[in-house]
Amino acid sequence: MNLLISLDSKSKLGLQQQIRQQMVAAILSGSIPVGQRIISSRKLSEQLQVARNTVTLAYNQLIDEGYLNSCERKGLFVNESILNDRSTGIVTQHNTFTKITSPKSKLFWQKKIKIKPNNSNHFHYPSDWDKHPYPFIDGVFDRSLYPVKQWQEASRLAFSNVNAQNMSSLNEEDDSRLIEEIRTKILPRRGIKAQREQILLTSGSQHALYLIIQLLCNKKTTVAVEEPGSISLRNCLKLTECKIHPQKIDKDGMIIDNRIEPCQLVFVTPSHQNPTAITMSQQRREKLMAFAKKYGQLIIEDDSDCERNYFGNPQPALCSLGISNQVIYVSAIPKAIAPGLDVGFIVANPELIIQAKHLRQLMLGNSNKSIQRTAAFFLFLGYYDAFLMKANKIFQRRWNALRDALNHYLPNAILTMPNQGGTAFWVKCPENIHIKQLISRAAKQGILIEPVKDYYYKNKNYKADHSQACFRMGVTSIDESNIRTGVAKLAKLIREFSGDQNITLSSYSQQPLDSKNLFKKLAGATLICQTVYGEPCQIVIRADGKLTGHAGFDKQDQDKGRWWIEDGCWFRQWSSWSYGEQACFFVIIEEQQISWFNQNGRLVDTAIIQTVDYTQKNQLV
Amino acid sequence: MNLLISLDSKSKLGLQQQIRQQMVAAILSGSIPVGQRIISSRKLSEQLQVARNTVTLAYNQLIDEGYLNSCERKGLFVNESILNDRSTGIVTQHNTFTKITSPKSKLFWQKKIKIKPNNSNHFHYPSDWDKHPYPFIDGVFDRSLYPVKQWQEASRLAFSNVNAQNMSSLNEEDDSRLIEEIRTKILPRRGIKAQREQILLTSGSQHALYLIIQLLCNKKTTVAVEEPGSISLRNCLKLTECKIHPQKIDKDGMIIDNRIEPCQLVFVTPSHQNPTAITMSQQRREKLMAFAKKYGQLIIEDDSDCERNYFGNPQPALCSLGISNQVIYVSAIPKAIAPGLDVGFIVANPELIIQAKHLRQLMLGNSNKSIQRTAAFFLFLGYYDAFLMKANKIFQRRWNALRDALNHYLPNAILTMPNQGGTAFWVKCPENIHIKQLISRAAKQGILIEPVKDYYYKNKNYKADHSQACFRMGVTSIDESNIRTGVAKLAKLIREFSGDQNITLSSYSQQPLDSKNLFKKLAGATLICQTVYGEPCQIVIRADGKLTGHAGFDKQDQDKGRWWIEDGCWFRQWSSWSYGEQACFFVIIEEQQISWFNQNGRLVDTAIIQTVDYTQKNQLV
Repeated sequence: MNLLISLDSKSKLGLQQQIRQQMVAAILSGSIPVGQRIISSRKLSEQLQVARNTVTLAYNQLIDEGYLNSCERKGLFVNESILNDRSTGIVTQHNTFTKITSPKSKLFWQKKIKIKPNNSNHFHYPSDWDKHPYPFIDGVFDRSLYPVKQWQEASRLAFSNVNAQNMSSLNEEDDSRLIEEIRTKILPRRGIKAQREQILLTSGSQHALYLIIQLLCNKKTTVAVEEPGSISLRNCLKLTECKIHPQKIDKDGMIIDNRIEPCQLVFVTPSHQNPTAITMSQQRREKLMAFAKKYGQLIIEDDSDCERNYFGNPQPALCSLGISNQVIYVSAIPKAIAPGLDVGFIVANPELIIQAKHLRQLMLGNSNKSIQRTAAFFLFLGYYDAFLMKANKIFQRRWNALRDALNHYLPNAILTMPNQGGTAFWVKCPENIHIKQLISRAAKQGILIEPVKDYYYKNKNYKADHSQACFRMGVTSIDESNIRTGVAKLAKLIREFSGDQNITLSSYSQQPLDSKNLFKKLAGATLICQTVYGEPCQIVIRADGKLTGHAGFDKQDQDKGRWWIEDGCWFRQWSSWSYGEQACFFVIIEEQQISWFNQNGRLVDTAIIQTVDYTQKNQLV
Repeated sequence: MNLLISLDSKSKLGLQQQIRQQMVAAILSGSIPVGQRIISSRKLSEQLQVARNTVTLAYNQLIDEGYLNSCERKGLFVNESILNDRSTGIVTQHNTFTKITSPKSKLFWQKKIKIKPNNSNHFHYPSDWDKHPYPFIDGVFDRSLYPVKQWQEASRLAFSNVNAQNMSSLNEEDDSRLIEEIRTKILPRRGIKAQREQILLTSGSQHALYLIIQLLCNKKTTVAVEEPGSISLRNCLKLTECKIHPQKIDKDGMIIDNRIEPCQLVFVTPSHQNPTAITMSQQRREKLMAFAKKYGQLIIEDDSDCERNYFGNPQPALCSLGISNQVIYVSAIPKAIAPGLDVGFIVANPELIIQAKHLRQLMLGNSNKSIQRTAAFFLFLGYYDAFLMKANKIFQRRWNALRDALNHYLPNAILTMPNQGGTAFWVKCPENIHIKQLISRAAKQGILIEPVKDYYYKNKNYKADHSQACFRMGVTSIDESNIRTGVAKLAKLIREFSGDQNITLSSYSQQPLDSKNLFKKLAGATLICQTVYGEPCQIVIRADGKLTGHAGFDKQDQDKGRWWIEDGCWFRQWSSWSYGEQACFFVIIEEQQISWFNQNGRLVDTAIIQTVDYTQKNQLV
């Protein structure tokens, strides 16, 4: 018998395991007929060049497990009964199912299927996103974030004898330990005080929304959603044939006016608007609550992105504000805690919780207690808060790196500044570039960005908000060290795409200032400009060749640098701003506006010259 | 500062971990105010009577994690920023949600909720079922079955670096390794040959059915289900407001006749009918397929109980029979493999698979890859078949034990004999006993059994099938050693309940035979009776005081014993039948029928006397 076993020294499986596993495969596939004698351990070990003991141990395991029988003095044989419970019916030679691409079967099935779960073709990241070096994706997490040791410890505790009882529960009940942990550790952070009967576990926040929608919506319901807003939320609503009203948002969140009066349900993401990251202001929250009370509306608050608010103190959840018979709260344990972790929860009136629990059981049978139990121990051991602090630090560093890189490479392109942390920037795509082409070309260079058009329900709203196409860049999945390079490559790609279409020196009637005029105009000047995040910035070009800069509403960001003029170019170098790199520019000044152009003649930035400070000028070197 | 830390030497957490975890709890709950100095490690170790190093290590961990700050020469303090991301809004003193039992809120919500996921109140096992010593429950599994080591090995491999990539996938795609394992290891056992595009993973078989029902049913659809049949299937169908037609089953499975002609969909469990365990005969399967082809019906085959067919070779799946554009196949990886494991799959035409995938994503977001990946490795390592063989052996032993116990203690009560293995018996409940009371009293004695009434859609069908109430007893969750005791206790309980209502000697006009007539009638007689599983049994009462017995259609079950007469009682003892225990009876013979009564005068069994064998009689001792 010639048995093809090949060993791989680099495999995660030991040699003994590889031998065992390949023997099993051969037996089950019928490669070794029943009744045939297996090659002896001595011969196999010679063939494979391994210790005989390795083969013997593998064989012993196979005997224990019932794959092989040992017949005294005859050798080892495949155990007949291992194949006995396999169906002895005729395994059809042809494929069990009709050809995949048969148009007839396609039509047959399309007639049978009653609902169309995916009406819109929207953008999807490639499934091998993690093999791209520059994944500026908001919403998935790179592996470096997982608190693996802590999760494994929680898992061990969850499965230890004392605790492993009742995992395969027969009934609908959720893991009570996890409910308690959520109740006492997670909800209070959001200002929510709830009883156990008001909490239901789900398989993630998407699942929570699906349950709520199935229970509360039908074709007679009108629902308000944020515009732009979550794509999957809208697709979920469409399943019920309800009427969707896209309500626009402004810098304070969803606009509350009489357009949402006919709506029975209002879906909001007040802590961290998906996708703009805007936080709903306190006044707007109160207005929303008053409106809902007046018109008897239910508010569904999706708080599942909240943990990524890491600048300043997050606002408490909407539903902590009191009029709570009308707020349904949805959130989740952060996915970044474990690969594939998807534990969400609903906090609502017990009537709704009871019905949601029944529906959940019809949908899924009984819930996966092992994940719930492990998550409970993770929280119990106090790892949740520690994890959040660590993740927030990492996101903040990455976010700053992205901000600096965009500021440096694409300064005119930043669109929306998340006003309270959050992990995504919106970036304008130059007018002449087709955004789908940009995204596709960027992906080929390992850069993943996301178009924002699909977040809008109505294309007209998208166009009204954006004269140019936009894309989104996030930091939850990219390593800090790759951010600058990724943005640089993206900027380069954009320039290549744009060709000659950028504003260049050649489109100006004026010539750049020569050295003498540069000095005359700039020495002692104070410039007013804006940073990419909309904060005021003041730069003093001192006559002594030094630069001082203040940025931020509180002028909290300061830097020093130096400047000089050479061959009709203005040179500057900061200590830390712009990565502390030296840069040189051609300069044109029209009235009070100063425009800087790089060596390729491309416009890089503009600013306003404050009235010249004559006291400084008199200090000319 | 008085910090209440108490250590438990029996806890699974080490001392260091307990100190750490209780400190964290105190910090997060605000018991230790920010800015307050923590008790020194020396003092705490004295207080707790532990090594100082233990405390120091705990404190160091808390410093690393950011809970504590060390101020030089001053001591340890709570880190302010750990509490900073907590909401600083007013945490309302009153409960966030209105009182649970307010009738006004109940009404409010009942009006809002559009569907009623649980129309029928049906029987539920208690959630602490595993604390009952005699859980005769079919469908959950006791912990002794879990192949823990193998699952953990699979889990380790699944999470090793090479493989942990892409767990947090952004898209709908299932774990391709698991799809492949199902395709090549599980489906062929059932005679199914499928392509990857025809397989979809779900969170269990219930989830699979829910997806299919949502896609294919609405209020205009008529659906045939087995009667009796799955409760959760019917509840799932009710969500769509489709018309449910309960079609009766006989010993060959669902009856196929023109009553199901108006149905567009037919749901069957042909391998192992839920709940009767009947296997659909080959002829009936062909009849069903021909019918479906003629009337353009879709068949949904739920094969998820199939692995428990361990007598003889299971029939191949219905959908291996060819006309497969019309069969949708649903099954699952056995839940007994890991606690909380719930991986199901659908095999169907790719058109349906695609829509089901979209719907699944709207329901659940993206699937839990970690469980899928672990299951894939479990299969890859060849543990699945080994597990099935082991589980089947265990179930067979348990099943035999249950059969023997019922035969011994409740011989007249067995109703349905699963005709091809399976793990449940149906048992008649004596007429005068209210079954709910019996179940409730049994539970108090630690015995769990299940009423079967709820499996019927229409009560009239239940009554038509059963003149007496029935309950079901299974073996998947009870240890073999508890089976006999459990049945004995149940039998005793039934007798107590029945009181005087059983047939007793006093209801006969005749007196039991005296010793002389006993000998005259019985010595040399051959008795014909039936075992509890409907098989013929022949007992020869030899004149020399020996007994020989043959049972089974092939007379494969044989035993020897002895008999004697004493004080008007007939004594017998087998070698192994009836546990080899001695028993004595009063005997009444009417015509050819012999009736045995126990010492309490209760009828125990009956048989028919064959014509006396005179040759034997002549060998009287």
